[in-house]
Amino acid sequence: MPIQEKLRELKITLPEMTPPVAAFVPFVRTGNLVFVSGHIAKRDGKPWTGRLGAGMTTEQGQQAARAVAIEVMGTLQGAVGDLEKVRRIVKLLVLVASAPGFTEQHLVANGASELFVQVFGERGAHARSAIGIVETPFGACVELELVAEVA
Amino acid sequence: MPIQEKLRELKITLPEMTPPVAAFVPFVRTGNLVFVSGHIAKRDGKPWTGRLGAGMTTEQGQQAARAVAIEVMGTLQGAVGDLEKVRRIVKLLVLVASAPGFTEQHLVANGASELFVQVFGERGAHARSAIGIVETPFGACVELELVAEVA
Amino acid sequence: MPIQEKLRELKITLPEMTPPVAAFVPFVRTGNLVFVSGHIAKRDGKPWTGRLGAGMTTEQGQQAARAVAIEVMGTLQGAVGDLEKVRRIVKLLVLVASAPGFTEQHLVANGASELFVQVFGERGAHARSAIGIVETPFGACVELELVAEVA
Repeated sequence: MPIQEKLRELKITLPEMTPPVAAFVPFVRTGNLVFVSGHIAKRDGKPWTGRLGAGMTTEQGQQAARAVAIEVMGTLQGAVGDLEKVRRIVKLLVLVASAPGFTEQHLVANGASELFVQVFGERGAHARSAIGIVETPFGACVELELVAEVA
Repeated sequence: MPIQEKLRELKITLPEMTPPVAAFVPFVRTGNLVFVSGHIAKRDGKPWTGRLGAGMTTEQGQQAARAVAIEVMGTLQGAVGDLEKVRRIVKLLVLVASAPGFTEQHLVANGASELFVQVFGERGAHARSAIGIVETPFGACVELELVAEVA
Repeated sequence: MPIQEKLRELKITLPEMTPPVAAFVPFVRTGNLVFVSGHIAKRDGKPWTGRLGAGMTTEQGQQAARAVAIEVMGTLQGAVGDLEKVRRIVKLLVLVASAPGFTEQHLVANGASELFVQVFGERGAHARSAIGIVETPFGACVELELVAEVA
């Protein structure tokens, strides 16, 4: 199924790629690889703040991870024009703001990973690391960076 | 010396690549690069839990880092079939579960780095970052991800 | 403007690439990509210790990030001989030692990002992730790793 159709079925509208507001850019392409900058989870257009293991549940974290995956897909679409040109989601780094003792970063990360597979099918199956960090910029609960191979 | 012989000399038996249990895969190859997912340290087949600087010594951390390097080599072998096809270990990211005040992540990471050099010789000399994080999935003390160049 | 001239204008003297002191190397080149190892911020030749949000201000963090960017440029020069051969700064990972509640990692990271753009111009505009971690090796306040595309 074409990716745009799949997105419609999932009722997902990709955001426009946010224009750079700092000394860095949302993505860089080198050869067939696109390196996408770390994106933070947002809710209602604002940073989705919180910390896993301190007032935020794993399920909420999964929703945040899914939300940031949508942001990243929007940037990826801005990078290549048409998501059909994405040959493979290569690698995700999922950074989960965590209190000591919270050890379900992999479950939080699945919120993003599963969406990539739903949208991209086999091309969405990626290598991944998930880790618990102290903070992300703006106090967001999840941050996500990605490497993709494009045509 | 062939890598398999070197592994025998070191009395290391590589594990089979663990089949994917989630929405991601153990590795992705793109061009000549293999991106290996974050692997956590295990002992007796279970997550090697603990935190450096909180009841776990640097030496124990080094052993855990060495153990996870063996896991990663198993996945790399699963990825390319024959480790002789690995042209270069390119980059390691060594994530060490750390209490504030523990600043020997580089020494912990050497447990992995030195094994790669022992096994792969010059091809095993890699770029590396070592950092102290709050938690890894399952409470493991060390997590390791890798990029390798293959033939 | 040639990069060396730009560096003179900024009164920046790049350090020699520090020779490897461990089981890893300062950089690895694979194809047209150079992966530079994590470098820690230094001041007067020693680790620039401290933690953001715990006795260290965002401005001081920016200075440290700028300092470590200079270290990384020194390594990059060692890697390619002539910085004019750098076609693109592809990706920065900026690791900021952070106390819980410090959420300005992006501002700290700008200390590095802005210098790359000053020195390399358009070629210096990079993808980036900035995160808050518990500790870096030697207790340094900022650690930086980089991927660059070279000719």
